[in-house]
Amino acid sequence: MKKILNDPYSYVDELLEGLVAAHPEYYRRLGANGRVIARAGTPKPGKVGIVTGGGSGHLPVFTGYVGPGLLDACAVGDVFASPSVDQMADSIRAANAGAGVLRLYGNYGGDIMNFDMAGDVVEMEDIRTTTVIVADDVASAPTAEAHKRRGVAGMVYAFKIAGAAAEAGLDLDAVTEVAQAAADACRSVGVALTPCVVPQAGKPTFSIGENEMEIGMGIHGEPGVRIGPLVGADAIADEMLDILLADRPVEKGERLSVMVNSLGATPPEELYILYRRVKARIDAAGGTIVMPLIGRYATSMEMTGVSFTLCRLDPRLEGYLTAPAACAFWRV
Amino acid sequence: MKKILNDPYSYVDELLEGLVAAHPEYYRRLGANGRVIARAGTPKPGKVGIVTGGGSGHLPVFTGYVGPGLLDACAVGDVFASPSVDQMADSIRAANAGAGVLRLYGNYGGDIMNFDMAGDVVEMEDIRTTTVIVADDVASAPTAEAHKRRGVAGMVYAFKIAGAAAEAGLDLDAVTEVAQAAADACRSVGVALTPCVVPQAGKPTFSIGENEMEIGMGIHGEPGVRIGPLVGADAIADEMLDILLADRPVEKGERLSVMVNSLGATPPEELYILYRRVKARIDAAGGTIVMPLIGRYATSMEMTGVSFTLCRLDPRLEGYLTAPAACAFWRV
Repeated sequence: MKKILNDPYSYVDELLEGLVAAHPEYYRRLGANGRVIARAGTPKPGKVGIVTGGGSGHLPVFTGYVGPGLLDACAVGDVFASPSVDQMADSIRAANAGAGVLRLYGNYGGDIMNFDMAGDVVEMEDIRTTTVIVADDVASAPTAEAHKRRGVAGMVYAFKIAGAAAEAGLDLDAVTEVAQAAADACRSVGVALTPCVVPQAGKPTFSIGENEMEIGMGIHGEPGVRIGPLVGADAIADEMLDILLADRPVEKGERLSVMVNSLGATPPEELYILYRRVKARIDAAGGTIVMPLIGRYATSMEMTGVSFTLCRLDPRLEGYLTAPAACAFWRV
Repeated sequence: MKKILNDPYSYVDELLEGLVAAHPEYYRRLGANGRVIARAGTPKPGKVGIVTGGGSGHLPVFTGYVGPGLLDACAVGDVFASPSVDQMADSIRAANAGAGVLRLYGNYGGDIMNFDMAGDVVEMEDIRTTTVIVADDVASAPTAEAHKRRGVAGMVYAFKIAGAAAEAGLDLDAVTEVAQAAADACRSVGVALTPCVVPQAGKPTFSIGENEMEIGMGIHGEPGVRIGPLVGADAIADEMLDILLADRPVEKGERLSVMVNSLGATPPEELYILYRRVKARIDAAGGTIVMPLIGRYATSMEMTGVSFTLCRLDPRLEGYLTAPAACAFWRV
């Protein structure tokens, strides 16, 4: 694994500088040390704000999804590290347009602790906040302990659906309820083939044998559920779908979106080979796929691997999912 | 390098199957063996058709760029291999709406030979064709022999600009002239850090030392101009820009688009670190960047590396570049 960078300690600041220079129509940089990305322009008065935050190294997650119909602001941590309380408080202030702010992020201890404290800070400034935590990675805890699961690519659905609800003018409690419904509708699982390198560490986050894969591995290299020989695309798709469908089966007539997501280095050619099998399986189960998302939506830099996310839709969620939205990485 | 696939010999057919299953609103599959991708729906009567073609393994190039405001059809070869004459003739037929068809593709011997023969075939069916060959890779031949250069990511600009001209209703000669102007406006150079694996070969296309990079390497692993130690992002950006600007300087007040393109595995974080330097250099030269393209626009599967393309704009080219267009990989 080879990386193109300057000083590893300026990796995040330099990438944010480039991001904002490239896309000033979407992003502006705020905060004492420039670690908050907010939507370009001023917040729409009376619109509920939505913020997220988390470690860097997952583009488009997190900060890429700031934009109309999506998020209002994002607190940006170092690679794979939580943003600070100050950065999160600044992101909440940036997103506040007088109607309160939803904190919508993944289920990681550091993020929860800091976002909770940031909420306490802004409460003293009369900014009301609510919280929805995305916990969609079925490989990270059993069904009975679903609240302990890590948040992975299901976040993208939650951002999109909650963002559309806020854009439609719903109030804070209603946006929060929609975001929770979106989070609850998602189930994900990943497979990793190679690790990635955190710039400041300078070496791979973990190792996988030359002809092996790890099913269920987390996006930071958290241990998966099974290490085994690297098998063919259809067999990989089947094992991942079996895990997802054991947790929650697809019902006949159900409408759902499917994400086949590259963790970074895996090219779109391979995603389409996998999607072919996923679609055949969902069709056979009697489900109908709406707006499949095939690409790089939630990554770990140059990690090789993929994740699948199934997002069950009812008419309300489907309407918000397919509503217009735009950021530098995704247009709906 | 690990790949997710089934039979290497069904790699291209399976990925096309998945592509069309995922995005029927953009693509349909045609031809005796399904190796032509055409726009969904029927051709707009009287619109000039634009076809391209080439080897697989470069998504979104080639076939991804079929869509409104872009291409009408694409002949799809095996990985890194030219499509057949029959496939190219079928792609021309699919793109024909009675106003003739522009063949717009990269400067590779096999593609030229087969597209020339395909033109002869369809001429007997009274389909008029013209040709524009993109040859933008400055590292592949000196300025005095620019016609010998390989076609790389500059193709994306040519597809976009010619596609908008055809959509605007220009006739075949005028679309051809615009496409040639777009091709002439582009200069590219790449740097490779790691190779990729052609599925049917099963081993890397070339090798680069653990701490080395190759400046000027082609997208199929064609030799570059210099192998050297892997240096920092700013130094890489400077060397690539020096090569591009030596071939054609940026003039004060000039407007241009810049593409910072991942060859596959290189993540967007690194592209933005590079773009930061590119923008500073172009700003210093007095140029104005319009619509920078930062992402994966022309790839070689899981190859690590980047390419830069500069596309000089006049008001006409800028208008076509920024006109609406849509495919599964890109929306303008």
